[in-house]
Amino acid sequence: MTVSPTISSEQEAREQALVDTVVASFDATPDDRLRSVMQALVRHLHAFIREVRLTEEEWNAAIAFLTATGHITDDRRQEFILLSDVLGASMQVVGVNNEAYADATEATVFGPFFTEDAPLLPQGGDMSFGAAGEPCFIEGSVRGTDGSPIPGARIEVWEADEDGFYDVQYTDGRVAARGHLFSDDDGRYRFWGLTPTPYPIPHDGPVGALLARAGRSPMRASHLHFMVSAPGYRTLITHIFVRGDELLERDSVFGVKESLVKDFVAHDPGDPTPDGRDLGGRAWSSTRFDIVLAPAGA
Amino acid sequence: MTVSPTISSEQEAREQALVDTVVASFDATPDDRLRSVMQALVRHLHAFIREVRLTEEEWNAAIAFLTATGHITDDRRQEFILLSDVLGASMQVVGVNNEAYADATEATVFGPFFTEDAPLLPQGGDMSFGAAGEPCFIEGSVRGTDGSPIPGARIEVWEADEDGFYDVQYTDGRVAARGHLFSDDDGRYRFWGLTPTPYPIPHDGPVGALLARAGRSPMRASHLHFMVSAPGYRTLITHIFVRGDELLERDSVFGVKESLVKDFVAHDPGDPTPDGRDLGGRAWSSTRFDIVLAPAGA
Repeated sequence: MTVSPTISSEQEAREQALVDTVVASFDATPDDRLRSVMQALVRHLHAFIREVRLTEEEWNAAIAFLTATGHITDDRRQEFILLSDVLGASMQVVGVNNEAYADATEATVFGPFFTEDAPLLPQGGDMSFGAAGEPCFIEGSVRGTDGSPIPGARIEVWEADEDGFYDVQYTDGRVAARGHLFSDDDGRYRFWGLTPTPYPIPHDGPVGALLARAGRSPMRASHLHFMVSAPGYRTLITHIFVRGDELLERDSVFGVKESLVKDFVAHDPGDPTPDGRDLGGRAWSSTRFDIVLAPAGA
Repeated sequence: MTVSPTISSEQEAREQALVDTVVASFDATPDDRLRSVMQALVRHLHAFIREVRLTEEEWNAAIAFLTATGHITDDRRQEFILLSDVLGASMQVVGVNNEAYADATEATVFGPFFTEDAPLLPQGGDMSFGAAGEPCFIEGSVRGTDGSPIPGARIEVWEADEDGFYDVQYTDGRVAARGHLFSDDDGRYRFWGLTPTPYPIPHDGPVGALLARAGRSPMRASHLHFMVSAPGYRTLITHIFVRGDELLERDSVFGVKESLVKDFVAHDPGDPTPDGRDLGGRAWSSTRFDIVLAPAGA
């Protein structure tokens, strides 16, 4: 590899010899996959160091950054996932593992805020559980790529409240703005949630400091999370986004895909709701998200 | 970039488009150097993910590994430096920043065990301060690449005891097996230390677990650390190693360079010492390390 026109061929040879030695140190790794992953990691890591001619001061800064990232991470805060997110690594892993298949709905980042055991909702139930925000009626269908409805698909949904926080970010143990329901016999589903609003990823740690130094915003485009699973189908982890949101073009974790941007229709206070629910004179919105699942193993 | 013959051109285009978007997100970084380093990091990180087709399970394992590495790291334990060391990254940074210059002595890894304010030794003094091990007499000269002696060069030395631990790894606050001295008017130096012995890097954490899974030993080749500085010269951070040590070929941090391997001469108990010191009937060793400093900025 030619790393720079100013590096002598002797220096390049010494640098490459070290790469070869480190790669060879993993030759005896019993697990084939671990061996190939580690050897590739070594090659790319060294290529980065050599290309930028990383200084010892920068190496020290990197060690300090990783140390701070480790120390802010706990059961409630996952700064390494944030780091992966803002470097687009999370989204690249999503893309590598969810290749496009026919008209199957596209995947996006999982994020750190999903929890197991979210409440079960009846069809048409309200997943807000008192979380602050404008009511939003969401409905759609779950189908295979052949168009056949998928009954009984498990649909997990979760989102931030209008103050920009998920329930798990509060310290009072609340469970709100999350739930799960199942598609009906015709593969259809409907529930009440909150009109998605924008919020920043946690930015009071090392990742936030990096974004600030890079002149990048920590804001995420407004979204509502979905995870949809059914036997025989590839599990779909995705969001829907709000058409017209000015953050669509600069989502801090690169999660936006055009096919996931939906029209959210604004309704005036007092407009009749699809299921006759009385919202007490509040404004509300509605949207539609028709989900297509790829076959398992696609 | 062609990542694999089994990836469709549409998939490759989507993956590359994400790389381009993430790189562009750093375009407005005010600091030129930070911008180019981050953009190179993004390119190499994504190239790694795409090449190995990193699975979501593996990404989760990587997040868990980094989290554990952060949580074991504290003021006394630096697991991120160990990680950098066993991936050869530390040694590559040393190489990039210490290019060969004439016959200047080669550099190697700094390691995590240097401390400021090590005791001042008189010429010929003993840096062991009671640390366990066989006495070793070390002498040599400090010169420039033009052969001229360098008087007053500051020589920091530190090493593990024969049990394989540096003083800072004990919890009793001891200061032992470290010190600093200055070259004399003729650029010469001499001191007593300990015959270097092999030891493992700390391997009870995530980095040790990685080495075990890779079938790699945590052992370091026997060595004695030097850091040598003088006004007008490039500071030299290096070790000397022991010829005949079977670990020279598989040092866990890739620190060995042939030019740094020295003959350590074994002396029987009672053999007269160079400075007449009475060792109370113990065996001892001796070696010579002539140091050549590159000019500052070389």
